Amino acid sequence: MNDTEAGPQQRVRLDVSYDGTDFAGWARQPDRRTVQGVVEDALATVLRLDGVRLRVAGRTDAGVHATGQVAHLDVPAAVWAAEGELLLRRLAGVLPPDVRVRGVRAVPPEFDARFAALWRRYEYRITDAPGGADPLRRHSVLAWPRRLDTDAMARAAAGLTGLRDFAAYCKRRDGATTIRELQRLDVQRADDDVLVTVTADAFCHSMVRSLVGGLLAVGEGRRADDWPASLLVLDRRSDDVPVAPAHGLTLVEVGYPPDDRLAARAVQTMARRDA
Amino acid sequence: MNDTEAGPQQRVRLDVSYDGTDFAGWARQPDRRTVQGVVEDALATVLRLDGVRLRVAGRTDAGVHATGQVAHLDVPAAVWAAEGELLLRRLAGVLPPDVRVRGVRAVPPEFDARFAALWRRYEYRITDAPGGADPLRRHSVLAWPRRLDTDAMARAAAGLTGLRDFAAYCKRRDGATTIRELQRLDVQRADDDVLVTVTADAFCHSMVRSLVGGLLAVGEGRRADDWPASLLVLDRRSDDVPVAPAHGLTLVEVGYPPDDRLAARAVQTMARRDA
Repeated sequence: MNDTEAGPQQRVRLDVSYDGTDFAGWARQPDRRTVQGVVEDALATVLRLDGVRLRVAGRTDAGVHATGQVAHLDVPAAVWAAEGELLLRRLAGVLPPDVRVRGVRAVPPEFDARFAALWRRYEYRITDAPGGADPLRRHSVLAWPRRLDTDAMARAAAGLTGLRDFAAYCKRRDGATTIRELQRLDVQRADDDVLVTVTADAFCHSMVRSLVGGLLAVGEGRRADDWPASLLVLDRRSDDVPVAPAHGLTLVEVGYPPDDRLAARAVQTMARRDA
Repeated sequence: MNDTEAGPQQRVRLDVSYDGTDFAGWARQPDRRTVQGVVEDALATVLRLDGVRLRVAGRTDAGVHATGQVAHLDVPAAVWAAEGELLLRRLAGVLPPDVRVRGVRAVPPEFDARFAALWRRYEYRITDAPGGADPLRRHSVLAWPRRLDTDAMARAAAGLTGLRDFAAYCKRRDGATTIRELQRLDVQRADDDVLVTVTADAFCHSMVRSLVGGLLAVGEGRRADDWPASLLVLDRRSDDVPVAPAHGLTLVEVGYPPDDRLAARAVQTMARRDA
């Protein structure tokens, strides 16, 4: 619990899933249907609070899905004591079916969904089946019209991991670093499904979809398998890298340190961003 | 190849997947959007044939999905020789995204999608997660608002298998037998997902959804775990058995004998239906 002018507060972690198809992304925008807006409004209704504001681990773009998104908010301790236990079922009754809060729990005040995160993992799903994408999964799988060489894609992926400057794969933002630690970038095939798994400490804007776009160019044979890594010398976004469509991308998990190391992690993250 | 008045014909097997949400079931009906109607129209367009008619393994109801539906048709041998190789990709271009033909291949004239089938396997998916169904799978998973006792459901399921008269679980049709061989009825839990797997030689109308409805009554504790099997003594549909909603149900696989036993199987099936 932490104290503010509004009285003692309880920090609460939410685990959130959504079908991004009909959302203009996570971040609240005026006159657009966003995940943040819909979840904040549902919390305000259920908790009878004004000005509910969430902080989130991954600000996903329009059309991107999540099965493991994490957000936090602070709730007056008295409200949490009265409403906490029933909150999950009551949110389920208020939220539309394309967004679900899967878990709700009290966390230490040092927990910060964004700044305490150690890593984010995304999955990008593609099928190159000649008949197209499974109808039941068509909203979250990219149908690719030609056969992909996944061995070449896997070799290209292996050359991209590590602590690197991903400027070639990032939309430029003044003053923001494009250095990231890409911990994992795998390409696996199971029958006609191609699964790209990406884990990093954090991602800059459109980075995962640009990495996948580069790998798809290799998979088609339009580029050599050392081409994606060769772009890491660039100090700005490369126009040669296509951005893969949003609907194949899902945020699947966010990792956090144990509770006793949360505060240290948040301080470290913020210091790095300022540097 | 088989010869008819229309000249030599090639029998062709189609493997079909669909999201049943926006279909009024498999079977063609005037003025309704059905899977049969959409696929027959696409075949007629691509093959430039009139009067394309499919026979299917499982005539699924409105809202029921399929990942492993099987159908067949006869095509003039000259058309097959000219169009067969490109048919899969061309159908993918013509069909709407909620139905896909995943496979197309020439089969012996004795292959009959309906009468040569040895068994059909369906899966029914339920979640009793307090937050509701995963948004990306909400169209094919039933969200159940209370916790289910899956051990009790599994015990109830074990009492229903075998060669039995399923009249209590069938919508009555005059002159049709309600005797079926229920080869498998399993209930498995994985986290908040409850998966019911059902395999039988064939199913009468609404049988799978009625079996699941009976199991749900046990899972909720409204009925004892020997109740579903106790209804097998009835000679007509039981009003006490709820029919589970269509959208949790998916036809996942149809089994056929090897080619050299196809004809014998079809004869055997038709003889049994007449008996």
